[in-house]
Amino acid sequence: MMNQETCIVVFSGGQDSTTCLFWAMKKFKEVIAVTFNYGQRHALEIECATAICKAHGIEHHILDMSLLSQLHPNALTHHALAVEAGGKGALPTTFVPARNLLFMSFAGAVAYNKGAKHLVTGVSEADFSGYPDCRDTFMKAMNVALNLSMDQAFVIHTPLMWKDKADVWALSDQLGKLDEIKEKTLTCYEGIIGDGCGTCLSCELRKKGYEAYMKSVNKS
Amino acid sequence: MMNQETCIVVFSGGQDSTTCLFWAMKKFKEVIAVTFNYGQRHALEIECATAICKAHGIEHHILDMSLLSQLHPNALTHHALAVEAGGKGALPTTFVPARNLLFMSFAGAVAYNKGAKHLVTGVSEADFSGYPDCRDTFMKAMNVALNLSMDQAFVIHTPLMWKDKADVWALSDQLGKLDEIKEKTLTCYEGIIGDGCGTCLSCELRKKGYEAYMKSVNKS
Repeated sequence: MMNQETCIVVFSGGQDSTTCLFWAMKKFKEVIAVTFNYGQRHALEIECATAICKAHGIEHHILDMSLLSQLHPNALTHHALAVEAGGKGALPTTFVPARNLLFMSFAGAVAYNKGAKHLVTGVSEADFSGYPDCRDTFMKAMNVALNLSMDQAFVIHTPLMWKDKADVWALSDQLGKLDEIKEKTLTCYEGIIGDGCGTCLSCELRKKGYEAYMKSVNKS
Repeated sequence: MMNQETCIVVFSGGQDSTTCLFWAMKKFKEVIAVTFNYGQRHALEIECATAICKAHGIEHHILDMSLLSQLHPNALTHHALAVEAGGKGALPTTFVPARNLLFMSFAGAVAYNKGAKHLVTGVSEADFSGYPDCRDTFMKAMNVALNLSMDQAFVIHTPLMWKDKADVWALSDQLGKLDEIKEKTLTCYEGIIGDGCGTCLSCELRKKGYEAYMKSVNKS
C-alpha cells in the first residue's frame, strides 16, 4: 500500500522543477527529491538542487545516470563488444532519446521503494521544443506502463504541462517563492545562478517570461 | 524512418532469450543483440551471450546497468545525499522494481539510434513468477509509452509470452536449434553451462520442460 501523502519530485534545480518542488511541498506531507546526474554540465545544477533541498529539509537522492552516454549514437556505432560508460564529456541532452522515459522509470522505482504514491515532473507542452517525451499524451501512457510494470497505482502529476514561462513565474508567485526561485535556481547555459548571463537562449526565455508575468501583475 | 528489417533482441544468453535470438534471425534481415550487465552473478551469462553472438556473426552491445543497484531499497534507505552505484555484490534481481520497464526503455533507445523498427524480448506469462513486468498487458502499455516517447512506431515482439518451458524447447526445435541451445546457454544458478547442476530450481524447470517436450515428440 503506497503512502497517499508521499511524493517523489524529479528535481534538476532549474526554475521549472524547483517550482514543482514547492508545489509538491504545499500539496503533500512528505516530499522526496530525485536528481539525475548525467554529465559535467550539470554539476552546478546539482549544487543548486542540493542547496535548495538542504534549505527546506527535503530528502534528496542523486542518481548516477552517466550510463545515458552509452545511448549516444557515437557510442553505439563503434560496433565494439562492450560499450563503456562515458562520464567526463558533457553529453548533448538533445541526443538522448527516451530520456524522460528513463527518468520516470527510475523515479517510479524510487517511488516503489519509498512507498510513495505520487510523482511530479516539470515537463511542459507550452514551450514545446520538439521533445515528444514532454507531451501530455506520453506522460499518460508512461503512467499506465509504470503502474502495470509494478502492479501499483502511482499518479504522475505534471503541474506545468500547459504553462509557458510567464505562467510558471505566476505559479511560483502564488506559492510565495518567486524571489527564491529567481535567485537560487540555475537555468543559464553559462552556469550563472539566478538571472544568469542574460544573453543565452535559456536566459532569454526565462527573462521574457518573467517580464511578461511582471507586466501582467502591474496591469491588474 | 525505421528499418522494417532490423530487430533489437534483449539477450541474456539464457535459454529463453537465445530462442528469441534464433527466432528473430529467421524473421528479420538484421539482428542486433543487447545484453544488460548488472551484477557479478551474470558474468558467465554474458560470456555465453558473447560466444553465441560471435558464433553467428551477430552485432552485440553490452550495456552497463550497474546503476540498477542504486534502486535497491538498501541503497535508498541510507538517506545519503549521493547514492553510489554498487557493482561488486550480486544484486538479487527480485528486488529490482521496474526492471523490464528500464530494459525495454534502453533497448528502445538503442533501436532509435540504430534505426531498428522491431524489438524482441523473451518474457513469458506461462511460467508466471509474480513479476508484473513480464505480463502481456504491461508489454503492450510499454510499447505505447515507448512509441510516444520518441514519436516512432516500434513493434515489441514477445514470441514466448504464452509458452511454458516445454513449448520453448519445441520452438527451438522448430528453429533447428534445440541442441545448440541445450549445450551453449546458461540457466543454472550454479553457473554451469548447458544442462547445469541439475538440482537448482532453474535446472529443474529447464529439465522438466525438456523431458515434457521429448515425451510429446516420442509420442507423436
